[in-house]
Amino acid sequence: MSEKPSYHMTPAEFRRLGRQVVDWIADYYERIESFPVLAQVEPGQIRASLPPAPPLQGEPFETFLDDVERLILPGITHWQSPNFFAFFPANASGPAILGELLSAGLGVQGMLWTTSPACTELETHVLDWFADMLGLPARFKSTGTGGGVIQDSASSASLCALLAARERATGYQTNESGVQGRLVAYASNQVHSSVEKAVKIAGLGRQNLRLIEVDEQFAMRPEVLARQIAEDRRAGLIPCFVCATIGTTSSGAVDPVPEIGRICREEGLWLHVDAAMAGTAAICPEFRFIHDGLEQADSYCTNPHKWMFTNFDCDCFFVADRAALIQTLSILPEYLRNRATESGAVIDYRDWQIPLGRRFRALKLWFVIRYYGIEGLRYHIRRHIALAQEFARWVEASDQFELVVRPLLNLVCFRHVGGDEVSRELMERLNRSGKLYLSHTVLDGRFTLRFCVGQTYTEAQHVARAWQQIQETAAAL
Amino acid sequence: MSEKPSYHMTPAEFRRLGRQVVDWIADYYERIESFPVLAQVEPGQIRASLPPAPPLQGEPFETFLDDVERLILPGITHWQSPNFFAFFPANASGPAILGELLSAGLGVQGMLWTTSPACTELETHVLDWFADMLGLPARFKSTGTGGGVIQDSASSASLCALLAARERATGYQTNESGVQGRLVAYASNQVHSSVEKAVKIAGLGRQNLRLIEVDEQFAMRPEVLARQIAEDRRAGLIPCFVCATIGTTSSGAVDPVPEIGRICREEGLWLHVDAAMAGTAAICPEFRFIHDGLEQADSYCTNPHKWMFTNFDCDCFFVADRAALIQTLSILPEYLRNRATESGAVIDYRDWQIPLGRRFRALKLWFVIRYYGIEGLRYHIRRHIALAQEFARWVEASDQFELVVRPLLNLVCFRHVGGDEVSRELMERLNRSGKLYLSHTVLDGRFTLRFCVGQTYTEAQHVARAWQQIQETAAAL
Repeated sequence: MSEKPSYHMTPAEFRRLGRQVVDWIADYYERIESFPVLAQVEPGQIRASLPPAPPLQGEPFETFLDDVERLILPGITHWQSPNFFAFFPANASGPAILGELLSAGLGVQGMLWTTSPACTELETHVLDWFADMLGLPARFKSTGTGGGVIQDSASSASLCALLAARERATGYQTNESGVQGRLVAYASNQVHSSVEKAVKIAGLGRQNLRLIEVDEQFAMRPEVLARQIAEDRRAGLIPCFVCATIGTTSSGAVDPVPEIGRICREEGLWLHVDAAMAGTAAICPEFRFIHDGLEQADSYCTNPHKWMFTNFDCDCFFVADRAALIQTLSILPEYLRNRATESGAVIDYRDWQIPLGRRFRALKLWFVIRYYGIEGLRYHIRRHIALAQEFARWVEASDQFELVVRPLLNLVCFRHVGGDEVSRELMERLNRSGKLYLSHTVLDGRFTLRFCVGQTYTEAQHVARAWQQIQETAAAL
Repeated sequence: MSEKPSYHMTPAEFRRLGRQVVDWIADYYERIESFPVLAQVEPGQIRASLPPAPPLQGEPFETFLDDVERLILPGITHWQSPNFFAFFPANASGPAILGELLSAGLGVQGMLWTTSPACTELETHVLDWFADMLGLPARFKSTGTGGGVIQDSASSASLCALLAARERATGYQTNESGVQGRLVAYASNQVHSSVEKAVKIAGLGRQNLRLIEVDEQFAMRPEVLARQIAEDRRAGLIPCFVCATIGTTSSGAVDPVPEIGRICREEGLWLHVDAAMAGTAAICPEFRFIHDGLEQADSYCTNPHKWMFTNFDCDCFFVADRAALIQTLSILPEYLRNRATESGAVIDYRDWQIPLGRRFRALKLWFVIRYYGIEGLRYHIRRHIALAQEFARWVEASDQFELVVRPLLNLVCFRHVGGDEVSRELMERLNRSGKLYLSHTVLDGRFTLRFCVGQTYTEAQHVARAWQQIQETAAAL
């Protein structure tokens, strides 16, 4: 930032304007409950208020915050509102936001160790910390045969895992010759849509994704998995990948990883475990059981950007055998060659992900873990789970609503007893009210409301008010 | 941010600590030239100074900035230093950093229109602005048949383009049935490594990527492309995708897009144009010629996170036919269904990219375009190009060095006349000095130094000092 006249923002201006933005964010959190949680705008409404052409001459930064207030805020769905109960949360926190700011300020690329050694080494180190916090098997750590890497999302983690599975199953020849024969992937019929997307991207084809049926708890039935694998082998297909889910998106179901892991080991299949939302709970000893069976998994992911106060993007992806992942994704053109890489003594995270470039995302995760400490994180996870459990008890005690499944953690699935259309209309009215935001799914063919407690600032009062609002709105239907 | 006792940072604390981080960043830019550009640490050195285990109890935020200073900065390669001339730049600026901060503060997910309409509509709008700034054909705009989307990187953009090409060429059946037969992709032998990675990921196989030979300017020879396509068709293969590059990584070469486009149109192949670095230059009318021929392209990308003062990640990816991209990447599970999507009146950017989740990256691009204005951006692009051209003249006038190719824009490729080992040793010494950072490639089989002028704060004095340093170090060899 030069002090000479130019179009650049000087450090002095950055200090002044940076404070304005910091204050704007603090103000935003202080008044966040005054906004409707779900944006109440029509398609095209936000865009219609924007100037048709970019400015030829620069404009003063001060006007930007006014415009954010006036033009952008009406079109914001407030994911950080304590009244946000939809989808899975994408919670954030002060230390994470400041970590992201610092990362943007440093502006380094972490594609190779040498392009910023601290970016790589802090990431490796904090992911080893995190593996211990989650009780992951030692081989998922960099000090073992594996290690962790921050991806943008669980979608990308699943894709990387599938690619490594595809290559391992074909002696790393698919990368060379392309997909040949029918490689088959398996997951429960409750698996996240990103696995279907990954199967398409990787060239396997949707027809070669087997969606295994589930039990009454919506968890994969391992005997059906085993039968399907055997059948596919008999048909000359090449089973290569299983995705088990800990905490499905629709209902929070936990696939039986120990049994699935045994099958994968016997069959030589790559087992990826997607715990995108639920994994964070394992930081609490009493919920660590959700990770039972991971000793047999090849890869695992969970998202601090969902339920651990770390703003998006921060998916933590762990592999048990880093060599398989690197052999799958590594490319070394001349212009990226360097002594450190050739020494073999360093990690180049470019070979652990789809893109080449990468930001310094470990900073925000480091800040969050240090700011809260393990005890602080446990405190909030337990609180969220307790609030969801209490909400489930209210549902159960009500004669207007029914629980669809007993919630294990912080996601409650319930229905109005009046049927699908009543539940759907209830959801639409609640979301239009702006007082809370919840979403839906379909379970057993029936419309089901999802109420997920995981927003950073959700307290008992918000859950109680939501329940009151749900009851009152239902009564008025 | 609750004011009650909890582990959360309160808004008041956020104001105070946010200022500290803003000031730290301003300080950092004021003293950035005091650090060695390339981090001078050994593998493992940064990590060795970090505590072996995460803290059980939270720690005060104030200690984090001290630790960044003490433990992290020695391992930072300073991409924002005005003495950074390596690779391609990843330049940033005040308005971009503050846009990123605001995005982290708002913490919204832009996966669907409904999950934050402003996030989607601002992105669509600003990318239409940007298309006009770059002189892209009208069909690349959302008001035509196409539109733009922000991706994390040109690697991901290439992958999305390749997938759409693969599907279009096979009637969208590869997504269903998997890769069948030999689908072939084409690019010059100077293409970025990410295209090879994409070809592997998409299941085509490296053997089915044809690296077409180049002319003496390292630009693709279109007649060789045409011959290769014909040969592949005769052999029963399925040509589907061509990647042309505007500004190759090794030497800044520009493939002849008009001729390549003609071939692609005749042959019905998807033409993707990768202008990751160089595209920004087209904002200046006198450099707009680099975009000649784009009328025949199916997709295009350029990275404001390289050379347009917008911190990583911000790759702008445009398609001429958005339906092809959406049909390739769309998946709609029940839990993401909503009225807006079903109305068909909105864009859901989840269907334009690999991951599901996405941050509000349009804010920083909006801020940069508005803060600089088109004239401000042109000023700096012209300045960078002029500085690189001047550097090239010094090289040319020197009897110690030779230009490898006449630079078109801001990348200068040169060699020491003493041969590969001298050039390599020169680079190592320069980079070890910490006074500047430059990188290398191999052109015509010979070690070649790359000097790219594109860092936000690089002024004439930095280029002059770099040249002096290069001469002095060479003299001492």
